[in-house]
Amino acid sequence: MISTRTRLFGLIGDPVSHSLSPIMQNHLFKLFGLDGVYLAFRTAGERLAEAINGARALALAGLNVTIPHKSAVVPLCDYRSPEVELLGVANTLVFRDGRIHAFTTDHSGFVDSLGGEKSRFSGSRVLLFGAGGSARAVAFALARLGIARLTIVNRSRTRGEELAEFCSRELAISAVEAISPLDPVLGGKITEAAILINATACGMFPHIEESPLSAFDLIDRRHFIYDLVYNPRETRFMRESGARGAAVQGGLDMLIFQGLAALNHWFYSDYRLDPAEMKKLKSLLNRELA
Amino acid sequence: MISTRTRLFGLIGDPVSHSLSPIMQNHLFKLFGLDGVYLAFRTAGERLAEAINGARALALAGLNVTIPHKSAVVPLCDYRSPEVELLGVANTLVFRDGRIHAFTTDHSGFVDSLGGEKSRFSGSRVLLFGAGGSARAVAFALARLGIARLTIVNRSRTRGEELAEFCSRELAISAVEAISPLDPVLGGKITEAAILINATACGMFPHIEESPLSAFDLIDRRHFIYDLVYNPRETRFMRESGARGAAVQGGLDMLIFQGLAALNHWFYSDYRLDPAEMKKLKSLLNRELA
Repeated sequence: MISTRTRLFGLIGDPVSHSLSPIMQNHLFKLFGLDGVYLAFRTAGERLAEAINGARALALAGLNVTIPHKSAVVPLCDYRSPEVELLGVANTLVFRDGRIHAFTTDHSGFVDSLGGEKSRFSGSRVLLFGAGGSARAVAFALARLGIARLTIVNRSRTRGEELAEFCSRELAISAVEAISPLDPVLGGKITEAAILINATACGMFPHIEESPLSAFDLIDRRHFIYDLVYNPRETRFMRESGARGAAVQGGLDMLIFQGLAALNHWFYSDYRLDPAEMKKLKSLLNRELA
Repeated sequence: MISTRTRLFGLIGDPVSHSLSPIMQNHLFKLFGLDGVYLAFRTAGERLAEAINGARALALAGLNVTIPHKSAVVPLCDYRSPEVELLGVANTLVFRDGRIHAFTTDHSGFVDSLGGEKSRFSGSRVLLFGAGGSARAVAFALARLGIARLTIVNRSRTRGEELAEFCSRELAISAVEAISPLDPVLGGKITEAAILINATACGMFPHIEESPLSAFDLIDRRHFIYDLVYNPRETRFMRESGARGAAVQGGLDMLIFQGLAALNHWFYSDYRLDPAEMKKLKSLLNRELA
C-alpha cells in the first residue's frame, strides 16, 4: 500500500506516452518488495531545468531520462559517472541528500542482454546502423567486448564520421570506418561481418515495413542480427534475416537490462531476474507491444 | 495498473511522515476509478518555490499543501480562489495547462463534517481555541454558519486579537472577542457557549494528556465539543467532555471532507461518499491512528 514512506521514481522525456518503463519498473518494485512508485513525466525541453531542480526539491528518489533530454540533463547534475562524462549522456539519475548523481545504463543493458551470444563479439567484425545516442552507447559496449573492426552505416555521413572518430579516439577501437547505406562497399562489409546491429529507429512501430537494410540476400546463417527496436517484437530486419538462417535478437532484453541496472543504482543493490521472472516480465511487456 | 497515463498527486509539507492523506487519497482514487497516485513530498521551506515550479514542469496534476507552506505557497500560484485571497492560505493546488490554481478546502471540510450537527450553529455562541491557520478557516466557516457570538481563546493575546479583528472586519462576525485561557471570564463564557471547538494542536499524539481546557466541571449535556485533532481518535478534551454528557466530534470527518473537496477540485467533479463508504474509509484511517 502507498504510504508517506513510498518513494517516487519516474521517466522524464517528451513524448513518454509509449514508454514501457512504468509497467516494467512497477512490476520490478513489486517483485523485489521495494516501496516505490514509478510514473511518466512528460516535460518539454525549456522546462527541463525546472523539472530536475523541482524533482530534487520534492525529494524524488530517482529518474530515468529519455529523448530528448539525455544530453541536456548532464550539466544539471552534481555527479557524473565516468561513462556519463565520456558519452555525454545520462539515462539514470539518483537523488541523494539533495544531490543528483547521473549514470547511463544503455551500454551495460546492451552487454547484459547478450547472454550466451556475448562470445560472438570478441575479435569479430561488426556493422552498426545509426550514429545517434543509442549507437554511441552500443559502440562503447562493443569496445569493451573486444570487437576487431567496426563499420558505422549512417545516412548522414558527417554524423557517422563523428561517431567513427569518437570510437577511434575515445574508445580505442582501432579499425573503424563510416559509410553511407548507399555505398557500394556495403555488400562486401555485410559478407565480412559476423554481427549486424540496428541502432536507428528504422522499423519501429508504426513504420514496421522499414528496415535499415533494404536487401537481405547477403544475410546467411553465419550472421547475428541485433535490433535495438522492441516494438514490434519482430522487426522486418529480424524477420527477413531470420528467414535466411541468421540468429536474431530484438530490443526487449536490452530495455529490461538497462531498466534493471537503473533500479540497482536507485537502491544500491544488485537485483537480478531468474529465467522464470525474466519470462514473466517479457510476457507482461509484450502484451503492450504491436 | 500504473501506466504512462497515470497522473500524479501529492502532499507537500514538512514533516509529512504522519499524514493520512496518501492512504486516504489512494483509497478514494481506487473507489472512484480514477487513474492517479498520491504521494507525500517532504520539502523544506527554502526549496518550496523550486518544488512548486518543478511540480508544474513535471506535469503533476495536483497537490495538497500542509504546514509550514500553506501561506508561502499562495504567491507562487497563478490563480487564487476568493477564499484563498481572503484567508491568505491554500491547501489545494490544481495544475492545468501549465498554470497553478490555488484553493483551500479546510473551511468547507469543517462545514461538510458537521452533518446533522450543522443546525446547532445558527445563532449560537461559540468558543474557539486557537488563532492559527486552522482557527482562521474554522472562523470563516462559523461566519457562514451564522453564529451569534465568537470568543477566541488563545495563549498569545496578540494573535488572538488579530484573528478577532479579522473576524470582525473581513468575516462580518459582529460580536467577537479574544481572551486568554487564564482569563477569569473563561468560566462564564463556557457556561454561555453552546459550542466549543479546539483548533490548536493541544492533545495531539504523542501529547495525549494535554487539553485546551484544564477544568471540565462547567461542561454539560448542552455543549457540543468539536476537536480538530484526529490522532488520537478520542482526545482528552473529547473524553472528559463526553463523560459530562456533552456531544463530541473528533477531527477525522473534517480531514476526510477537506480531502474529498481537494479531489473534486483536481477532477472537476462532485464525488461523494455514501455512509457505507464513509464507514469503510474511517475504519481504514483509524487503523493508522493511536
